[in-house]
Amino acid sequence: MNTGNKTPISTLGEFGLIRHLTEEIKLENTSSKYGVGDDCAVLEYPDKQVLVTTDLLMEGVHFDLIYVPLKHLGYKAVMVNLSDIYAMNGTPRQITVSLAISKRFSVEDMEELYAGMRLACEAHHVDIVGGDTTSSLTGLAISITAIGDAPKEKIVYRNGAHETDLICVSGNLGAAYMGLQLLEREKSVFMGESNVQPDFAGKEYLLERQLKPEARGDIISALAEAGIQPTAMMDISDGLSSELMHICKQSGTGCRVYEEHIPLDYQTAVMAEELNMNVTTCALNGGEDYELLFTVPLADYDKVSKLKDVRLIGHITKPELGCMLITRDGGEMELKAQGWQALTEE
Amino acid sequence: MNTGNKTPISTLGEFGLIRHLTEEIKLENTSSKYGVGDDCAVLEYPDKQVLVTTDLLMEGVHFDLIYVPLKHLGYKAVMVNLSDIYAMNGTPRQITVSLAISKRFSVEDMEELYAGMRLACEAHHVDIVGGDTTSSLTGLAISITAIGDAPKEKIVYRNGAHETDLICVSGNLGAAYMGLQLLEREKSVFMGESNVQPDFAGKEYLLERQLKPEARGDIISALAEAGIQPTAMMDISDGLSSELMHICKQSGTGCRVYEEHIPLDYQTAVMAEELNMNVTTCALNGGEDYELLFTVPLADYDKVSKLKDVRLIGHITKPELGCMLITRDGGEMELKAQGWQALTEE
Repeated sequence: MNTGNKTPISTLGEFGLIRHLTEEIKLENTSSKYGVGDDCAVLEYPDKQVLVTTDLLMEGVHFDLIYVPLKHLGYKAVMVNLSDIYAMNGTPRQITVSLAISKRFSVEDMEELYAGMRLACEAHHVDIVGGDTTSSLTGLAISITAIGDAPKEKIVYRNGAHETDLICVSGNLGAAYMGLQLLEREKSVFMGESNVQPDFAGKEYLLERQLKPEARGDIISALAEAGIQPTAMMDISDGLSSELMHICKQSGTGCRVYEEHIPLDYQTAVMAEELNMNVTTCALNGGEDYELLFTVPLADYDKVSKLKDVRLIGHITKPELGCMLITRDGGEMELKAQGWQALTEE
Repeated sequence: MNTGNKTPISTLGEFGLIRHLTEEIKLENTSSKYGVGDDCAVLEYPDKQVLVTTDLLMEGVHFDLIYVPLKHLGYKAVMVNLSDIYAMNGTPRQITVSLAISKRFSVEDMEELYAGMRLACEAHHVDIVGGDTTSSLTGLAISITAIGDAPKEKIVYRNGAHETDLICVSGNLGAAYMGLQLLEREKSVFMGESNVQPDFAGKEYLLERQLKPEARGDIISALAEAGIQPTAMMDISDGLSSELMHICKQSGTGCRVYEEHIPLDYQTAVMAEELNMNVTTCALNGGEDYELLFTVPLADYDKVSKLKDVRLIGHITKPELGCMLITRDGGEMELKAQGWQALTEE
């Protein structure tokens, strides 16, 4: 949080704060007819289907302000929602933002948070069309709803994968989870719970993946340009294993994924080694990568092979074959959803 | 909260809980193409404009589970959002629901909350199309986004009031605030802070207004049937004064409201007397009535006078005349926004 002179939120009040944070917002999309300032935002989608997704982030559960700067938090809170719109093969257009703020936050803190949200919106040409700001007795809560559009025939669900489809993934996996480990290690140094000095040198990429994830709108554009219509798609928020199982369950199929083809960054591998963790486990279960996982018909093999930053990792099978990882030594291991399950594990 | 055998949420997990709470949900609206179960909900609005509103309710700030049953809380959380859609002269169609839950809640508690939300949705033919359930370190947080539609030319903003327009209000005001006072009094008895025994006899209406508000879709239908297109409209969530000032500020007008015409229920007056409070102050600033405040052209006087449960309380003036209350004794008092402003008053 800001360390300079702080303006208490009470000087602006609820309505004043919303006005202050949203007054310069200009609407970019033709579908945004009216933004902040009335009981509702007004949108118009005459010839496309509308995609809606929502997310609630709670301090202490989804983020730790000890090591997450508010600007990054705002950026990430928006990105994770835009990622859900891209995961349906849509284009994000609008968001609404609800914040619950405790007294320890200042006007400058909220400006930082909003600056991050606006940066994410600008990068993806998304309009902030609604805002609700209220108080909280304890931590910060951020609820964002993202709205997007897509022509009806372009929308990709989780349930469309077919036997022999190719399984593809964008970017690389496990880095966001390694970034979190790095930040947790720094925190324990900061809290006096560890003697290991944090060393971020050469690990900037891992931090960036954790603190500043990028929703893969570029992949959606590349797929459209290449004339590829995925049969099923999801974004990877809970981990590759968990998402693969969602697609297979909803599509009524099985899958085979090859360990050797799972994309990893060099820094992810180095960090896993340092922490004595299995890097494949991190890539399968780490979560928060916000990469896209999708399936395409076998006939698209040539087209999809040419896509930049997309890797083929396996194929869809009959359901009775289950969801299997083929390990480097040729063995078979059943995939398990060990992604983020705060509600079961606590 | 449920007092019988409780099932820990950990037995179902995050995905299991969402599935459990949403699995029987059937979609009623033709605009709801796909609901819970993918990265986004899919909607379709080919020939209408889309209204979007969102709200974040935090335990301890917006509700107190000591005296608010979870089923009522769910009902109210939905109603306040539907009310915002009606306030634009629209029809609510869908909601998405995000919950953050701490460990003290059970599966049965969440069933109660959802039962209340579904009751509110069924009464207004609204579909639950998306859900996010996560954990919270402290209290319960509920974020609801409501989506509705209206023909473009029917949408009513806050900024359309003109000089000589009539100011109308539905139902009666101040009762929800009196219900809150009554519940707070009961709580202090319960907490051993007061010797006054709570007495709800004859005050059931006040409790109902606080615990089970009804969004006034019936008034929107009645206006349409009578062929009345309001020039400006809002729902009364923060109090009549505050909302009137929003309409006047955004429309660039003033107003005159007559104290003697402000609709009050008998029980509200009795309770105010009991608490030594000015009943007009309660009606002006109490908030949470979720009645509709709207302006209509003078030419609609006859039509609007015939509407059931709608009262004329004043008229719109030139801006230089300010926002004035004409008291019973003929005096003038400037209206002030003293509505709920938790962020300034704490």
